[in-house]
Amino acid sequence: MMKKITTNQQDDLLPEYNFDYTKARPNRFTTTSEKRGNSAMDKLEQYRNIVKKILTEYYEMSNNQTSKNSEFEVSERLAIDENRDQYIWFRFGWEDKKQIQHIIIYLTLKNGKVWVEEDATDLCIVDDLLSAGIPQNDIILGFHHPSKRVFTEFAKA
Amino acid sequence: MMKKITTNQQDDLLPEYNFDYTKARPNRFTTTSEKRGNSAMDKLEQYRNIVKKILTEYYEMSNNQTSKNSEFEVSERLAIDENRDQYIWFRFGWEDKKQIQHIIIYLTLKNGKVWVEEDATDLCIVDDLLSAGIPQNDIILGFHHPSKRVFTEFAKA
Repeated sequence: MMKKITTNQQDDLLPEYNFDYTKARPNRFTTTSEKRGNSAMDKLEQYRNIVKKILTEYYEMSNNQTSKNSEFEVSERLAIDENRDQYIWFRFGWEDKKQIQHIIIYLTLKNGKVWVEEDATDLCIVDDLLSAGIPQNDIILGFHHPSKRVFTEFAKA
Repeated sequence: MMKKITTNQQDDLLPEYNFDYTKARPNRFTTTSEKRGNSAMDKLEQYRNIVKKILTEYYEMSNNQTSKNSEFEVSERLAIDENRDQYIWFRFGWEDKKQIQHIIIYLTLKNGKVWVEEDATDLCIVDDLLSAGIPQNDIILGFHHPSKRVFTEFAKA
């Protein structure tokens, strides 16, 4: 019934952002969904699942490496709010006399796009988002100042 | 079957923390639950509802006052994760060339107690927690350095 749109934008993406597809862990974060309908809702749900999966995996990976210490010390925390589409992995706690609050990775979904609001890691989450099937024009590099986003190949908003 | 424990700890709480019960908005944040069972699960669910309700109300109150501006500017965000019991109200975004990340109020539930991990407001959330029925010995003032918590009438951990 609906006209099926078959764009193949994969080929003209990458000039500025050097994502080496040959090194990509193949579809590590893709959801189990088979070919589904094309509705915006499905897309949103798919993006949501990808974002949750990546962030949870990062968090668990990191927390397996660091030993669990006292309640009082700094620890990493994960907050996943699917209703408000807020996905935050952060450090919080007391380090000596100093209270630490530091966002490690922070993602949101807004208007059908994935915002990488903050990424203080070298985990290359954008690579993982791309490799999971989210196209470059649905990813916003929020950690860049708005004025700088126009110089990237990614979406501006 | 089970021995019913009826402690009345309300009377010997307050010396150090000057909570004026006469000024309390009566049960503004108490849940609609009637007398329920005494299980730890029920208590946890009750605390969870109180925490969600207070934080959401604060957030909405604050966001009704501030005008909605561009996507690019700093805005307040709310993340509620009931699975991990993380409840965060924070400011995030770009202010001129500077990226802002600042926790306004951050609550968690751990071991059946409510942790006020951070409170950068003058909203007196602890008063509202008390007035909603959470006893002082189930509230931890995480925003105080651990070494200082022993000097308060609240729980230490």
